[in-house]
Amino acid sequence: MNGKLIVLSGPSGTGKSTVIASVMAQYPNLQFSVSATTRAMRPGETDGKDYFFVTRETFLQMLENGELLEHAEYVNNFYGTPEKAVNDALASGIDVLLDIEPQGALQVKARRDDAIMLFLAPPSIPILESRLRGRGDTSPEAVEKRLQQARWELSQAEKYDYIVVNDRVETATQEILAIITAEKCKTQDRIHRIKEEP
Amino acid sequence: MNGKLIVLSGPSGTGKSTVIASVMAQYPNLQFSVSATTRAMRPGETDGKDYFFVTRETFLQMLENGELLEHAEYVNNFYGTPEKAVNDALASGIDVLLDIEPQGALQVKARRDDAIMLFLAPPSIPILESRLRGRGDTSPEAVEKRLQQARWELSQAEKYDYIVVNDRVETATQEILAIITAEKCKTQDRIHRIKEEP
Repeated sequence: MNGKLIVLSGPSGTGKSTVIASVMAQYPNLQFSVSATTRAMRPGETDGKDYFFVTRETFLQMLENGELLEHAEYVNNFYGTPEKAVNDALASGIDVLLDIEPQGALQVKARRDDAIMLFLAPPSIPILESRLRGRGDTSPEAVEKRLQQARWELSQAEKYDYIVVNDRVETATQEILAIITAEKCKTQDRIHRIKEEP
Repeated sequence: MNGKLIVLSGPSGTGKSTVIASVMAQYPNLQFSVSATTRAMRPGETDGKDYFFVTRETFLQMLENGELLEHAEYVNNFYGTPEKAVNDALASGIDVLLDIEPQGALQVKARRDDAIMLFLAPPSIPILESRLRGRGDTSPEAVEKRLQQARWELSQAEKYDYIVVNDRVETATQEILAIITAEKCKTQDRIHRIKEEP
């Protein structure tokens, strides 16, 4: 049985990284797909673990070679998902979690019918805005751009299969794990279990 | 938010009652819908808890009054679900679990688009057959009728939304709870959470 392709998306500032770390800690059969990006590494990030940090030139070459499942430009940086690693994991029965911005997530949805689309929402819009303002690593113009981006991203939520609200990390984690379990119980994946043995 | 209507069905002998008791014990917001039946009470059963045990005449009167969400005849007995109690619980936000034979379950599916259809499957067909033969409370003819019925019921599994295999009661329980949780995360039920507050 192939693994499940799970796309977790949502605006910057909803706590995706924390929730993902929590899900990974509780569910070992899940592989986190490492994206390629042209943005600068932030303190605490590791190349090859958080992202593959690549130059703009390398990224465009990967794109031209058709090596990316999706890609997006976000606050003047490129982000993309190398497709081969995803397919290899799925074929060996491992579930794959993609953490991508909504712009890229909807490309995956369009290309792959089997993708399970999860939107991670903030507890409320004011809380999200306060988080985006409070990061302190960017200019007021960049913050305003982020807010505009977040509003657009929130408007895309209805295109997803599921919405998980990140009120509490543990609740969000349990909901994501439940969604993965439920998807594996869907009739199309289980019907072979009840065919009469010869 | 209205409760969820969950239909759990599957052949006699898959262990539905045991699994349902386990689910109910772990999930208090779930109301078990008590069916009406014309079959004789079995040892250990309680009227009004396991079933409403009614006469054939009473049952046909309920049917004529349009009081039943579904009904079925099974091994010469009638079974049916009184609809009002189901609707009252759903309207007050309580999830309702219906335990019905596949014949009745598919009537619910046809009438109510919101019903979540779960098929509880036996670990294997030989195990199911052995359970049906081993009950010892019926004649060989009745056993053969049950086996035929079970084969037809298994052939209906593909019409359900989910298939839960009752290998182990605890695993089946966790899968059913995960399905209920996941269904509550579906976008249509959650989209109101991310509309911008005024």
